[in-house]
Amino acid sequence: MNDPRPVGIFDSGIGGLTVLAELRRRFPEEHFLYLGDTARLPYGTKSPDTVVRYALGAARALVGRRIKLLVVACNTASALALGALREAVPVPVLGVVEPGARAAAAATRGRIGVIGTESTIASSAYVRAVQALLPDARVLTRACPLFVPLAEEGWFDHPVTRQVAEVYLADLAHAGIDTLILGCTHYPLLRRAIAAAVGPGVTLVDSATAVADEIEAQDTATRRGNGRRGRVQLLVTDAAARFARIATSILGDPLPAPLELIDL
Amino acid sequence: MNDPRPVGIFDSGIGGLTVLAELRRRFPEEHFLYLGDTARLPYGTKSPDTVVRYALGAARALVGRRIKLLVVACNTASALALGALREAVPVPVLGVVEPGARAAAAATRGRIGVIGTESTIASSAYVRAVQALLPDARVLTRACPLFVPLAEEGWFDHPVTRQVAEVYLADLAHAGIDTLILGCTHYPLLRRAIAAAVGPGVTLVDSATAVADEIEAQDTATRRGNGRRGRVQLLVTDAAARFARIATSILGDPLPAPLELIDL
Repeated sequence: MNDPRPVGIFDSGIGGLTVLAELRRRFPEEHFLYLGDTARLPYGTKSPDTVVRYALGAARALVGRRIKLLVVACNTASALALGALREAVPVPVLGVVEPGARAAAAATRGRIGVIGTESTIASSAYVRAVQALLPDARVLTRACPLFVPLAEEGWFDHPVTRQVAEVYLADLAHAGIDTLILGCTHYPLLRRAIAAAVGPGVTLVDSATAVADEIEAQDTATRRGNGRRGRVQLLVTDAAARFARIATSILGDPLPAPLELIDL
Repeated sequence: MNDPRPVGIFDSGIGGLTVLAELRRRFPEEHFLYLGDTARLPYGTKSPDTVVRYALGAARALVGRRIKLLVVACNTASALALGALREAVPVPVLGVVEPGARAAAAATRGRIGVIGTESTIASSAYVRAVQALLPDARVLTRACPLFVPLAEEGWFDHPVTRQVAEVYLADLAHAGIDTLILGCTHYPLLRRAIAAAVGPGVTLVDSATAVADEIEAQDTATRRGNGRRGRVQLLVTDAAARFARIATSILGDPLPAPLELIDL
């Protein structure tokens, strides 16, 4: 099969660009349509009902532009809205929670840490997903609310970020986790500071790699462009200039794509 | 005059509670109706058009509940939406920028620092307001995006907060400011860390005190309750549990008011 329609990727803001970057690397001939709902971010401190409502609006906008697959790159939306999204849209929907849980279950020796936004952690979605695969695994969780603003400030490996990581991750490190799920798409940007805080020997699982593995396994990226690089288009709901500034630190400068402001 | 209608206070989230706390202290017989637009916070990283749209929606909800005065306790909305609000609502509208600028102009010996969110600083609203009063004043500005999440994390005087304050405020301290406008209602919560970073001898101007002074000067708080304490009501647009948890650290425990979830 050779389906030329783009893969849709949806996030509350910039974090999902880490997923877009990985998917472009792995599936270079594919077209991608990315939507960052910057008018309503962050999702991670909002209630489940509100997150579902926002996610449905974003998904419908992408479906209206004829995507073939919807990747929910936002962990909060994956944790809280995946069921509602699968009912509402007519294309396959892939979240980041199940792929992340699967990657962690394959890597662990029995003790898994999960970090994410307040809403993601409160949902227990990762704990359920991991324990469905490994009922005996010990799963410890910690919300890390300052990691997203630190990533958006560009302080990826700043001394302040290292200190915050030590405060947040001390209990998980002390409990002897062997695998840590980075349960928020912003967190790979802080990978070095996070790795330093949990110490050597802990496997970090990030959503971008896990989702790319899943797409490869399902063979849902199906455009063959005869070696020609696919197109990327970026949509945001607000503050395009700010998005562009941060996006260049993830995707490179100049941006590989035009940036379009849309209203949901 | 003795007008029993409540004073409406509007903020994007919890920051404006510092204004509510100060107004209650100064006008104990007054009734207050507070609206935190928690479904759409933060305003400080969003575009001017979006901030105006959100602020109008919030203001109309408060006017619909028959307030006599609207206090825009959000610096971002004060900086970007005050004109639109004054045109749209039939009650007096008081922002925090002009009172803050007036307090700073009265305190300074000529060098004023202003800190706030990205949108507030980008608007230059404080610079214009100060220079309208003191054309020769030197005004230096700095956006401090991590201060709001640090305040919401409850790390008011945490070592991390002290370190972030040093990074953000080094240039202002070095330039020899004598007065610093805390141009965001969250910032008074971090007062000790901010004061330590700019050093002794710098007057800190906060929105809560400045707005209370302005209301006293205009004599717009006009309920006389025969010594009876006025009522407070708190409205939020989302995540009431999270709001309540942070609000108790500002207003005290138990909360002085019922908390109602509304949809805008």
